[in-house]
Amino acid sequence: MAQITEVSPLAPAGFPELPIIQGVTFAAAEAGVKYQGRKDVTLIRLAAGSTVAGVFTKSATRSANVLDCQAKVGLESDEGAAFIINSGNSNAFTGRAGEGSVKAICDSVAQATGLSGNRVFTSSTGVIGERLPHDRITAKVSELVDGLTADAIEDAAHGIMTTDTYAKGTGTTVMVDGKPVKIAGIAKGSGMIAPDMATMLVYVFTDAKVERALLQQILSELTDITFNAITVDSDTSTSDTLLLGATGASGVEITEATGAFATALHEVMRDLAHLVVRDGEGASKFVEINVTSAASDADAKTHAMAIANSPLVKTAIAGEDPNWGRIVMAIGKSGAAADRDLLTIHFGDVLVAEKGWVAESYSEEAGASYMQAQDLAIHVDLGIGEGRFTSWTCDLTHGYITINADYRS
Amino acid sequence: MAQITEVSPLAPAGFPELPIIQGVTFAAAEAGVKYQGRKDVTLIRLAAGSTVAGVFTKSATRSANVLDCQAKVGLESDEGAAFIINSGNSNAFTGRAGEGSVKAICDSVAQATGLSGNRVFTSSTGVIGERLPHDRITAKVSELVDGLTADAIEDAAHGIMTTDTYAKGTGTTVMVDGKPVKIAGIAKGSGMIAPDMATMLVYVFTDAKVERALLQQILSELTDITFNAITVDSDTSTSDTLLLGATGASGVEITEATGAFATALHEVMRDLAHLVVRDGEGASKFVEINVTSAASDADAKTHAMAIANSPLVKTAIAGEDPNWGRIVMAIGKSGAAADRDLLTIHFGDVLVAEKGWVAESYSEEAGASYMQAQDLAIHVDLGIGEGRFTSWTCDLTHGYITINADYRS
Repeated sequence: MAQITEVSPLAPAGFPELPIIQGVTFAAAEAGVKYQGRKDVTLIRLAAGSTVAGVFTKSATRSANVLDCQAKVGLESDEGAAFIINSGNSNAFTGRAGEGSVKAICDSVAQATGLSGNRVFTSSTGVIGERLPHDRITAKVSELVDGLTADAIEDAAHGIMTTDTYAKGTGTTVMVDGKPVKIAGIAKGSGMIAPDMATMLVYVFTDAKVERALLQQILSELTDITFNAITVDSDTSTSDTLLLGATGASGVEITEATGAFATALHEVMRDLAHLVVRDGEGASKFVEINVTSAASDADAKTHAMAIANSPLVKTAIAGEDPNWGRIVMAIGKSGAAADRDLLTIHFGDVLVAEKGWVAESYSEEAGASYMQAQDLAIHVDLGIGEGRFTSWTCDLTHGYITINADYRS
Repeated sequence: MAQITEVSPLAPAGFPELPIIQGVTFAAAEAGVKYQGRKDVTLIRLAAGSTVAGVFTKSATRSANVLDCQAKVGLESDEGAAFIINSGNSNAFTGRAGEGSVKAICDSVAQATGLSGNRVFTSSTGVIGERLPHDRITAKVSELVDGLTADAIEDAAHGIMTTDTYAKGTGTTVMVDGKPVKIAGIAKGSGMIAPDMATMLVYVFTDAKVERALLQQILSELTDITFNAITVDSDTSTSDTLLLGATGASGVEITEATGAFATALHEVMRDLAHLVVRDGEGASKFVEINVTSAASDADAKTHAMAIANSPLVKTAIAGEDPNWGRIVMAIGKSGAAADRDLLTIHFGDVLVAEKGWVAESYSEEAGASYMQAQDLAIHVDLGIGEGRFTSWTCDLTHGYITINADYRS
C-alpha cells in the first residue's frame, strides 16, 4: 500500500488555536479499525439543547452511515447529540451488513451516553467494500465517553484523517448584538491510497443558539458557495458528510439567515473548504476561478466548475502555462450560455483576452510570469448578465497519478 | 514545444488498404501553416451528385470553420462538394478575423474548382487564438486541385494530423441488394502539444446513393453510439467535425436508416472512434464500458460516461488495480438512477460485485490478473430496466501529465 508521507506544499504552518465551544467535548482513541498506532475513532458530544444540521453526498451509492444520518438530522430534539467517526473503513457498498454496523455503533454510544439512538450520528471513511469491524469501535466507546474534554478538537481533527497530509481546522469569534459567538470546525479530505475512497468529512460547532430549521437553512445556503464550490478531481465520494452543531451556550440567539453570524460561519466553512483543496492529491497550486456577468448564478457555476474540473486547464496550471485557450475551451463545452465576442479573461491582474480574441496588451511573458505563483486567480467575465460564482481547485500533476495509479492495493 | 514522437502502444500495425470510393479524390500539400517539412493542407473533392451530411461540436466557443460548415451542411445541391482541412492552427477564438479566413479559403477553392462557395467545407485544427495565415493555404489551392487523385486517402489521413502518433483510417465493402457498396473514412484526434487544442476531425466517404436528409439522419444516429460514446479526458474541442459524403457512384440507392449499409457504416465509424481512443494522450489501455439494465438508454449513457471520465477509475486502470469501489463511486455520482443492492459488476468474465457487495466468488488475484490485459471490458448491470449503452475510454497515466503539463509553449 502506498504511503504518501510528504505534507502538501500548500499546507498551512500548523494547526491553529481554536476557540473553545461551550457545550462541545471531544475524544479520540486507537481502535485499530485499519490503521495501527494512531487514533482512528473520534467521539464528539453536544450538550442538551444543541441543534444539529447536516448536508450529505447526493451519491446514489452513498454509505449506510450517510443514509442513517439523513434520516435523523431533520428530527427535533432537546437531548443534545453525539457524533462518532471512524477512519480506515468507509462502510460503503457493504450491503445490509453496513446497516447492521451503523446500528451496533449507535446502540453502543446511546447506551454509554444516555442519548436516544436517533441522536447519534455516525461517519465512516476509508476503504470501500470491506465489512466494517464495528466491534473494535464499540469496544472503545466507554473509554471515549470517559475521555471527553472541551479542549481536544485538534485530537479530533487528527482522528478523522485518512491519507490527509495535515489536520484541518479553523475558527473565529464574532460579535452578535454586542456579545461574542464562537465558531470552530474541522475537516478531512483529499488524501487517497488505492483502493481507499477519498471522502470529505466536516464538523462545525458554535455556541450560538439557533433553531434547527434555521440552522439547516443557513448551512445549506453556505454549503452551496463553499464545499459545493470546490473540486479536486470531479469524483464525488460515497461518504461526504458535513454536520453543524449549535449548543446555544453563548446565550446569543440567531434569528436570521443573514448577518454577522452567517458571515462568520461562511468564512469558517470557506476556510475549511480551502484547506481540503490545499491538501488535494498531488496539488502544487491553489486556484480560484471567478466567473462574473453570466446569464445567471447557475450558469456562472456551470462555467466555473467546467474550468475547475478540466484536466487540460489543470495540467496547464501545473505546467505554469498561461494557456487561456483551454479556458475558452472549458467555457465552450460547459453547456451554459457564452458569447465568444463578449468574453474577457484575466489571470490575476493580467488582461489575457477580450472581445473574442487575445488582448492587444497581452504578452506571453506577463502571463507566464503570473503563472509561477503558488496561489492563482482566474477571472472570466462573460459580458452577458448579472450571474456570478467562485470555485476553487488545484492543479493536476504527476503526484495525482502517482498517488492513484502507481501503487496496487 | 513538446514533441511526442513515440507511437501509441495501442496503435494498429499500419495504415490499412482502403477501398477506392468512386467520385472522391484527395490531395495534400505542404503549406507551412505552422509545421515545416510535412503536408498540412488537404483537399478532398466529391463529384457532382454527391450528398453531404455532418455533425459538429456543440461548444459555445466553436471555431469560425465549424459555424460556417453548420450553415452549409443542410443545403441541397447537385454540384458536389470540396472539403479543405489545415493542421497547425485551429482558427478558433480568432474573433471576426477567423470568419474572414474561412471566406478567403472558400472563395479560393470555389474559384479553382468551379463549385459554389457554399459547397466548400473548411476545417482547421491546431493552436487556438492565433490568426490563421490563410494566404499560405490559398497559395496551395491550384496545386491541390491539380493533384487530386482517387488513391491518396492515406496522404489525406497524414495531412490532417496534428500531434496524433499515427494516421487513422478504416473502410469496408458491404453487399446491398446484391451489389457492393464501399465505405472508407479517416480521422485525427487526441494528440496535443501545449498550447494546442486537441480536436477530432473525421471524414467518411461512400459510393452509396443516399438522399441528403436520410444521410444526415443515419449519420446523427450513428454518431451518438460511436464518436459521442468515446472520451479521452472529458474536454470537448472547439473544432470537432465529422463530414460524411455519399457519391452515389455504386448505383446502389439506400432508402432506409437501418439495414446492411447502416450496419457497415456503423462499423466504420466505431472503428475510427476506437482509433482515436487508442491514440489518447498517454494511453496504455483501451477500455470498453458496457452498461446494461439501466432505467433508460439515456441513464445507461450517463453511467457509462461517468465511469469513462472518472480520473479515479482511469488511474486505477493505469495501475492495473481492480478497484471496483471506484466504479461504484462513479455510478453513485453520475446522477442517473442506481440501486446499490441490484448492481452487478464484471471485469471481463470475472464477477466482481453483486447484490450490493463484493461477490463471494471474487478474489483479488483474479481481478488483478485480468487488469494486466491491454484491452479491458468493464460491465455494469444495474438490474433496473432495459436501458443500455457502451462507451470507450483509455487510462490516465503519467504520459497524459507529461504531454499536457511538463512543457511550456
